[in-house]
Amino acid sequence: MDHVNGSLNRKLKMGLVGGGQGSFIGRVHNIAAILDNRGELVAGALSSSPEKSKASAPFYDIAPERAYGSFQEMIEKELKRPANDRIDFVTVATPNHMHFPVAKAAAEQGLNVICDKPLTFDLKEAEELAKIVEKNKVVFAVTHNYTGYPLIRQAREMIQAGELGEIQAVRSNYIQGWLRTKLEDSDQKQAAWRTDPSKSGIAGAFGDIATHAYNLVRYTTGLIPAEISCTLKTFEPGRKLDDYGHAVIRFDNGGLGTVTASQISHGRENDLTLEIDGTKASISWRQEEPNHMYVRRNGEPWQVYTRNPGAPFTTPISSASSRLPAGHPEAFFEAFANVYRFAYDAMIQRAAGEAFEMRDTIYPNVYDGIDGMNFIQQCVASSRENSAWVPLKHSACRK
Amino acid sequence: MDHVNGSLNRKLKMGLVGGGQGSFIGRVHNIAAILDNRGELVAGALSSSPEKSKASAPFYDIAPERAYGSFQEMIEKELKRPANDRIDFVTVATPNHMHFPVAKAAAEQGLNVICDKPLTFDLKEAEELAKIVEKNKVVFAVTHNYTGYPLIRQAREMIQAGELGEIQAVRSNYIQGWLRTKLEDSDQKQAAWRTDPSKSGIAGAFGDIATHAYNLVRYTTGLIPAEISCTLKTFEPGRKLDDYGHAVIRFDNGGLGTVTASQISHGRENDLTLEIDGTKASISWRQEEPNHMYVRRNGEPWQVYTRNPGAPFTTPISSASSRLPAGHPEAFFEAFANVYRFAYDAMIQRAAGEAFEMRDTIYPNVYDGIDGMNFIQQCVASSRENSAWVPLKHSACRK
Amino acid sequence: MDHVNGSLNRKLKMGLVGGGQGSFIGRVHNIAAILDNRGELVAGALSSSPEKSKASAPFYDIAPERAYGSFQEMIEKELKRPANDRIDFVTVATPNHMHFPVAKAAAEQGLNVICDKPLTFDLKEAEELAKIVEKNKVVFAVTHNYTGYPLIRQAREMIQAGELGEIQAVRSNYIQGWLRTKLEDSDQKQAAWRTDPSKSGIAGAFGDIATHAYNLVRYTTGLIPAEISCTLKTFEPGRKLDDYGHAVIRFDNGGLGTVTASQISHGRENDLTLEIDGTKASISWRQEEPNHMYVRRNGEPWQVYTRNPGAPFTTPISSASSRLPAGHPEAFFEAFANVYRFAYDAMIQRAAGEAFEMRDTIYPNVYDGIDGMNFIQQCVASSRENSAWVPLKHSACRK
Amino acid sequence: MDHVNGSLNRKLKMGLVGGGQGSFIGRVHNIAAILDNRGELVAGALSSSPEKSKASAPFYDIAPERAYGSFQEMIEKELKRPANDRIDFVTVATPNHMHFPVAKAAAEQGLNVICDKPLTFDLKEAEELAKIVEKNKVVFAVTHNYTGYPLIRQAREMIQAGELGEIQAVRSNYIQGWLRTKLEDSDQKQAAWRTDPSKSGIAGAFGDIATHAYNLVRYTTGLIPAEISCTLKTFEPGRKLDDYGHAVIRFDNGGLGTVTASQISHGRENDLTLEIDGTKASISWRQEEPNHMYVRRNGEPWQVYTRNPGAPFTTPISSASSRLPAGHPEAFFEAFANVYRFAYDAMIQRAAGEAFEMRDTIYPNVYDGIDGMNFIQQCVASSRENSAWVPLKHSACRK
Repeated sequence: MDHVNGSLNRKLKMGLVGGGQGSFIGRVHNIAAILDNRGELVAGALSSSPEKSKASAPFYDIAPERAYGSFQEMIEKELKRPANDRIDFVTVATPNHMHFPVAKAAAEQGLNVICDKPLTFDLKEAEELAKIVEKNKVVFAVTHNYTGYPLIRQAREMIQAGELGEIQAVRSNYIQGWLRTKLEDSDQKQAAWRTDPSKSGIAGAFGDIATHAYNLVRYTTGLIPAEISCTLKTFEPGRKLDDYGHAVIRFDNGGLGTVTASQISHGRENDLTLEIDGTKASISWRQEEPNHMYVRRNGEPWQVYTRNPGAPFTTPISSASSRLPAGHPEAFFEAFANVYRFAYDAMIQRAAGEAFEMRDTIYPNVYDGIDGMNFIQQCVASSRENSAWVPLKHSACRK
Repeated sequence: MDHVNGSLNRKLKMGLVGGGQGSFIGRVHNIAAILDNRGELVAGALSSSPEKSKASAPFYDIAPERAYGSFQEMIEKELKRPANDRIDFVTVATPNHMHFPVAKAAAEQGLNVICDKPLTFDLKEAEELAKIVEKNKVVFAVTHNYTGYPLIRQAREMIQAGELGEIQAVRSNYIQGWLRTKLEDSDQKQAAWRTDPSKSGIAGAFGDIATHAYNLVRYTTGLIPAEISCTLKTFEPGRKLDDYGHAVIRFDNGGLGTVTASQISHGRENDLTLEIDGTKASISWRQEEPNHMYVRRNGEPWQVYTRNPGAPFTTPISSASSRLPAGHPEAFFEAFANVYRFAYDAMIQRAAGEAFEMRDTIYPNVYDGIDGMNFIQQCVASSRENSAWVPLKHSACRK
Repeated sequence: MDHVNGSLNRKLKMGLVGGGQGSFIGRVHNIAAILDNRGELVAGALSSSPEKSKASAPFYDIAPERAYGSFQEMIEKELKRPANDRIDFVTVATPNHMHFPVAKAAAEQGLNVICDKPLTFDLKEAEELAKIVEKNKVVFAVTHNYTGYPLIRQAREMIQAGELGEIQAVRSNYIQGWLRTKLEDSDQKQAAWRTDPSKSGIAGAFGDIATHAYNLVRYTTGLIPAEISCTLKTFEPGRKLDDYGHAVIRFDNGGLGTVTASQISHGRENDLTLEIDGTKASISWRQEEPNHMYVRRNGEPWQVYTRNPGAPFTTPISSASSRLPAGHPEAFFEAFANVYRFAYDAMIQRAAGEAFEMRDTIYPNVYDGIDGMNFIQQCVASSRENSAWVPLKHSACRK
Repeated sequence: MDHVNGSLNRKLKMGLVGGGQGSFIGRVHNIAAILDNRGELVAGALSSSPEKSKASAPFYDIAPERAYGSFQEMIEKELKRPANDRIDFVTVATPNHMHFPVAKAAAEQGLNVICDKPLTFDLKEAEELAKIVEKNKVVFAVTHNYTGYPLIRQAREMIQAGELGEIQAVRSNYIQGWLRTKLEDSDQKQAAWRTDPSKSGIAGAFGDIATHAYNLVRYTTGLIPAEISCTLKTFEPGRKLDDYGHAVIRFDNGGLGTVTASQISHGRENDLTLEIDGTKASISWRQEEPNHMYVRRNGEPWQVYTRNPGAPFTTPISSASSRLPAGHPEAFFEAFANVYRFAYDAMIQRAAGEAFEMRDTIYPNVYDGIDGMNFIQQCVASSRENSAWVPLKHSACRK
């Protein structure tokens, strides 16, 4: 057995920006990064407050001297360390408005980046970031983490192989209830920045979760969007951004898609669903029970594809995205780690001076990030124009 | 125990129009009508072909002399029979284009009517029919049969009692797959008339099934529609009517609704779902598992309301719509029969010369039928205008 | 289309014994009998009290003159009516201790019988009844109604066709909660007689519901039982019969079966499950969601067989046991009616003087009834002997 | 925020025995150990073959000099390292026959131990091991990992708090299909040792998986077993150990339990279920959908407890066993890591010279391991005596 990190022959070193006290996603990145024994968290700028940053370090077992007061300091000081003892990549787990400056600073110094979604504060930043990534030829992953589920990758591979025929209709809903009350008025960090336009951007639920739903549609079907009609709502009085919304998408091939997002549905937790209708078969999948996927064909018994690595019916990338035998459920962390797993492959190739895929990656990349930002921008634009159809295609995006 | 048919003291007599060979819904009406031992099928005009009509009679155990060659003949000859030995009501189970003439003829002769949905061929007919019903003061039910499920009625009663708070968002999908291929080109009676604009009307999937979804939204929430934006598609080449579509509804109270209908989703059978978001609780229900309904509130365990007549949590009309103890599943026929059950109550009241409810009925009535026809008309209108918002409110409809 | 009642050319006439006020199962028999328009309820001895019997008649729309004071009177007077205007069969819906006398009286007069389960009060009666049935050559069905579910019949046909290979293990549980409290001390008719050894027989939960589970095992797999070890419990203090129990069965072929029954499991409604392991495939089914059955094979996606009459994968008797297209759920009543459906076929053959199947019937017959009584007797015997293995095979039973 | 490793102020260091090429469980231990950033894998004796051991090291990122040729060598050489730079604990992930010698060697040197289940090769070894643990006062955890699921801990806490009343009946099944064919004849490492009595011990399926089911019953309900009747089967011809079996347990309080285990059920993956009946409520849970647990009470809607840390209804240890908000599913790895999480707490206490719990631990301990070995021994004993009742209580076990 060769080292799983190939010729690099050591774990990849991660510097985390964001993720201080009260953060949920910082910890998720941490676990995802180390799960396969291929990465280690060695440095951090965990908070915009240097004191909080240092105070949070022990939780991540980051050595005090590598718990930095700012991301600028982290990048600067890490780059002064010996080549084999400094961070290989920066993970950006801050609120949205900080994604761009951090990612830019890292990429410009040649550091690989793993960045939370939505990619940036606005589309313009996203487009600029893509140019920086291209110029500096760094590995860049966006944690549209739901693409990491083995059965989502199975769906994508089955569709690419033509098993579903032509895709004509897609429905993806993302239903939550946690912002049913005005949580942002209490001291709830997660709610506070997500509903604050100065940190979150122009969209609330649509920026936070509808982008995931849209991303899944694009990732699995590969359908090229043509135009979109969107209706956003803010049901919780006084809230500054949408907490509910609905979009209809016309695809280039004549297909029709719908995306619904809610953060005000009582008791609904994280109910992201995907339904795909092809001329030969249909698919249904639900994030809260991610180890099963329904494949149906008229006149046949329904099929339940279980996450079952190595089974005759399991596609190659789906198999390569599993860690456990069938029936031993994998879930959110493992899917998240699958974004890292394939980004790590690219980082190792890059470290070895080898060519690595930048566009048609298994993990979501900077172009998928642009796709998401374009989606957000055009949803808001359409909604402001009374749900008018507006264009959705972006030249940079994955085909 | 008094006779369940009250002072009438006998079963109600049914005359069936439509339902000849190859029909599915005629048989359903028959079973629904007799299930509670309160009705009997005694006469029929089962087909537009007199020969077929007579040939189909034995299947329904209709006596040869009461198997008529046309609905006109049935009405005429039945009315000549002694008062206690003729039909009390006419069930209309024909393709859509025949609903109006049959229902009109029956109502004008003072016969009660149970009519398939959508109510008529177009909205104008529906409006005219309502006037005839009002003038003749007959009992008139429309078989939006899914309202008959006990848990749908439970949802309605809970919402009316304020248990969900204000309703803000509703989603209803109706997903089928049986028209995935161009079945109408084969000798399939069900597919043939449903895809034929001369028999079905201006809409396909939206007339056939989206109306059910819309009806459930209206029946359970009572929300008043303001305007609608609709996008219809015909995915099967050469088909004359829509086989897929999507509508967004703005309600008077600021709420948002979505309705999706598909007949081209492989392997999907009759998957009608309903999700309702209120400020106090949310509800989810699925027709294919009709004996369970999820009620959720933030911070509490989910609740699964089972169909459980007499239980402390079961609402009165829901209890009155059940025939079996919990865990002994009831399904499609029983729900259908619940439309009949409550229409029968009204027929018996009418027969006894008592007042009976015509507007706020438990069963769907002629005004709900208008509501559905208005929905179809405005969906098609919106879709033709590039999904423009068009008004949806109709003055006649249930509030 | 010929008359569905063949050369008989009329509905079969039913006389109901039992089913008076407070009865649940009488009503079920009634609906099952008429559901297909092939039977009608014309006479009844609805209660052991002549007054209650007559008072209950209007609920069933039984004419006053045919509401009899006793089953003896019903049989006697009905037989004096003209041949085409008297009952063709007697349905026995009384508590267990009355099954034998009623069924015996009917069969000896040449009347067909549909009898509730368990067949009789004890095994001896069951064996005697079988002889009477054989001698009088009447049609005799026992309402082990869960065999009527189309997918249970599908399982049986698939197993008979060898699709599951050799059957090695079977598990069937029947879990209820309604007797969690001592309901028999209140005025609850259902609970009262079921927990009274003078009416129910030697077993409680095992007589009432474990027999159904055992019957399903035998009906679907055809495995021949060799011996049984059983442990019965009475958890509710003061109750006279078992309300919980468990049995292990060794089959002739070396296979192993388990049956568990509970009436004390909080909130569990009528949760009858069946799991079958064959050398080629396994099957799982659950009564509370009867329209779906899982078929699994190692290395393949799971299959969900839906109730789907006419589909290529649906077996002939399963198709013939459905009334609605897939996705339009059928449930308890329809399954119950499927016992009647196939017993009616035999009654019509008998009426026409044709030969009819008496042993290998699609519906459960008198021999299945013996099988169930033998099961009850041997379970109690084993339990009394500290769960010792006791023989289970009975020479009369279906192979 | 203090360091999550308290005054130890560093990660705990793990030495892994077993887990070489082809192992599944070694990798699971590794991920579980590091998931919370509190442990690191630094040394290994990964295979009984020194070459394989070294070859496997890079996969775990174990430095070559700490990839040892035998567990004896690992323990000896690690103990020569500086106190803060040597292993704190040994994880035993070998086939069963090696558990005892490895665990004994580690414990006798004062190293903490995390050991796979079943605890040892036979009961005698288990009893001896407990004495060694007691004498050396090391932390000792057994990876009955399913106890790590937050909702299993919730069930335990609810039962301890009396929310279910007295527990009367428990059913736990563990159904798999992977040994349906004689996989041990091919080159499948997992199958080979599990079906080999010289490595696995006296039981097959019952040693491998029924112990988990039994452990869950004991862990959640705390019921004290009195006696057991067991029937083991080997369905796959030529297999040396049981691949199917069934046990009935009588508890001290009069309650009844059943445990079924199968490895020959086609397509069944890892279907461990638990059903508990108390006098006040019942619980149902299923490992393949571990984030939901049904709690039922007569007369009330069913409740679905979701894994929802911090929610008002979530019990303390259940909350402390979660890492993600509700709806972000956790699964097998996280449950496994929860055994480590609480064992780590004890190791840190021990390292600080503090007292630590050894008997009533949240994680399964050496006494639970004895309980499991006693279960296996008595199951086999009963089965050999024609399913006779044999005693099941063991004085050492958790009450």
